[in-house]
Amino acid sequence: MDGFLAKVTITITMKPTLLDAQGRTVEGALKAIGYDDVAGVRVGKVIELEVPGSDVATIEATAAEMCDRLLANPVLEDYRISVTL
Amino acid sequence: MDGFLAKVTITITMKPTLLDAQGRTVEGALKAIGYDDVAGVRVGKVIELEVPGSDVATIEATAAEMCDRLLANPVLEDYRISVTL
Repeated sequence: MDGFLAKVTITITMKPTLLDAQGRTVEGALKAIGYDDVAGVRVGKVIELEVPGSDVATIEATAAEMCDRLLANPVLEDYRISVTL
Repeated sequence: MDGFLAKVTITITMKPTLLDAQGRTVEGALKAIGYDDVAGVRVGKVIELEVPGSDVATIEATAAEMCDRLLANPVLEDYRISVTL
């Protein structure tokens, strides 16, 4: 490769239509300590990694492939990818 | 409040100096399926929530307080907050 390391941030969350039990639990805990007006809490995963390369489109495609093959469950989860060169 | 709902995204990761066992495992799995040049994999949590309000500084302060009191472990973890109105 060309010596550049790109930083990739992958955010994986449950699909909006599915019940997010962990989010529901966190929301209850926040309300219990006084944050009464908090709503819509969702808990997901974030995976940060570095790959060599400097072409954002190629890196995004590689990261999407990683998600489809290993990191995310496409039936239950959505993922977002952001690349910082 | 004034009827606005702000979307808050809180990203919680292990402090960089600490061994991230989950990240190490994911990195090994990625290498095992052919992504040999992936490095520095870290796995964290992302918490998305909505709170009423339209003043970013106030909302950020509230979210930081939620992290300190409940969501993050300040000894082991760092957090980043981003607010979208």
